[in-house]
Amino acid sequence: MTFVSIREVAPRDGLQNEDPVPADGKVELIDALSRTGVRRIEAVSFVHPKAIPQMADADEVWSRITRNPDVRYSALIPNTRGAQRALAAGFSEIEVVVSASDTHNRRNLNRSTDESLDDIAALIPLVHEAGGTLEVIVATSFGCPYEGDIAPERVAGIVARVRADGADRIAFGDTTGMATPRRVRDLLAEVRPDLLHFHNTRGTGLANIVTALELGVTEFDASAGGLGGCPYAPGASGNVATEEVVHMLHDMGFDTGIDLDRLIEAAELAERLVGRPLPSGVLRAGPRTRLV
Amino acid sequence: MTFVSIREVAPRDGLQNEDPVPADGKVELIDALSRTGVRRIEAVSFVHPKAIPQMADADEVWSRITRNPDVRYSALIPNTRGAQRALAAGFSEIEVVVSASDTHNRRNLNRSTDESLDDIAALIPLVHEAGGTLEVIVATSFGCPYEGDIAPERVAGIVARVRADGADRIAFGDTTGMATPRRVRDLLAEVRPDLLHFHNTRGTGLANIVTALELGVTEFDASAGGLGGCPYAPGASGNVATEEVVHMLHDMGFDTGIDLDRLIEAAELAERLVGRPLPSGVLRAGPRTRLV
Repeated sequence: MTFVSIREVAPRDGLQNEDPVPADGKVELIDALSRTGVRRIEAVSFVHPKAIPQMADADEVWSRITRNPDVRYSALIPNTRGAQRALAAGFSEIEVVVSASDTHNRRNLNRSTDESLDDIAALIPLVHEAGGTLEVIVATSFGCPYEGDIAPERVAGIVARVRADGADRIAFGDTTGMATPRRVRDLLAEVRPDLLHFHNTRGTGLANIVTALELGVTEFDASAGGLGGCPYAPGASGNVATEEVVHMLHDMGFDTGIDLDRLIEAAELAERLVGRPLPSGVLRAGPRTRLV
Repeated sequence: MTFVSIREVAPRDGLQNEDPVPADGKVELIDALSRTGVRRIEAVSFVHPKAIPQMADADEVWSRITRNPDVRYSALIPNTRGAQRALAAGFSEIEVVVSASDTHNRRNLNRSTDESLDDIAALIPLVHEAGGTLEVIVATSFGCPYEGDIAPERVAGIVARVRADGADRIAFGDTTGMATPRRVRDLLAEVRPDLLHFHNTRGTGLANIVTALELGVTEFDASAGGLGGCPYAPGASGNVATEEVVHMLHDMGFDTGIDLDRLIEAAELAERLVGRPLPSGVLRAGPRTRLV
């Protein structure tokens, strides 16, 4: 049975795109997720509190959770200051984002993609000297809401640059849900990531995961309940829902190590924390094995 | 470019599972859909008005629509009386449902699967004598909400019986969204339909379609806006949304003959008719080509 590694991103990527949730709720959610059997959790980000108030309490949340020794926790950082905070807090798995689209990178990070790549090159030795690893998430890898299609060669160039600079891992982000199975095949024919991060904005999230599995990728991000809306389309879905991904993978014979019932309970908690129905079919209808 | 044939089922399957919509709205929806380029529309069902009041005005709706000569319209019927009404109204493409699950068939049609198969055997010559064709939709082909998994051999037995009795076409219905790519492969390895009808209840709708396309099936039902909820799970999705299916297929290089912008307008109309947000990502976020 092939093992598929899920990284649960609801506490960071999910909650960062929702109205602020108190630290108590974040701690409860991370702890609930860490009891599902999931092996990796993106726990917090160390960003400027004025830029992203949702994550202002990252240090408090991280200090209060009950750490599960079987779970690897990671933190997202935007710059050197964030990396220093994450390392000081004891994180060894650090993530940083750069966008394949220059326009998106400027809107998101106020600098060109090339400037961000220079920043990342400077960041890598700092993380390595502290004993950490750096994952580079290439945002808008499957398309940009400002520029449209992104050439696979463009993504491949960024990957070559950050690998040469010493990046430990590469993820491709489908930032606004523009991937389809065709785009997955086109990009992976050109360059391969360690992990894929799909959004379900246009309904293709699970189809993209199935396609990527056929191509040999076995690491995916997902967010309990599909937590985290799409900032470009009010009311639209963002991240693929972890319980939809796990439900499908288990029925297809893949092992994730995750207890689906506990995961659904964690997604129910996520729904209570944000106070609105989350876009997850398995959360609404239950797994296919739940009979009337 | 491979042609994928979509049958639009929002006017019948969709509206039948919503609060009743006036005849004016049904006529407007069918006419809007018939201008999208879609080649087939499931327009109405001829059922007892006490059993399904949503379709009580089938004759009126059918008489008032503007028929597009490029569109094949079909009607669903439950029994001989319904078939007589459909044929009298001028339909030549008739559909009838039988459930692979005996329990589901009894709950839905108040008779065993075998009794329904006998009814269908009697129905086929009646339809043929009037110059019509009969499609048999095998419901719960990928699982039953009462019985659980349905053996592919069970579905194959039903297909063999109705083909021997003269059925013109076979469809497999994923009545409550229990299909996954694994179930699609398992069933299609045993027996092949002309058309597949998937629900997106647990998020796997498009993944199932991609899998079926890889196996050579090129006819699918879909419902504008994802109209038609899941009767077994309040708030859950039912039919796959036509615009999500078409959006993905076009990006993958398939031809459907459908104008996606017109289809989204028809889905917006469907949303206004039922007065609630429909579960369609492409309806919310627009196609991936719509830039900020």
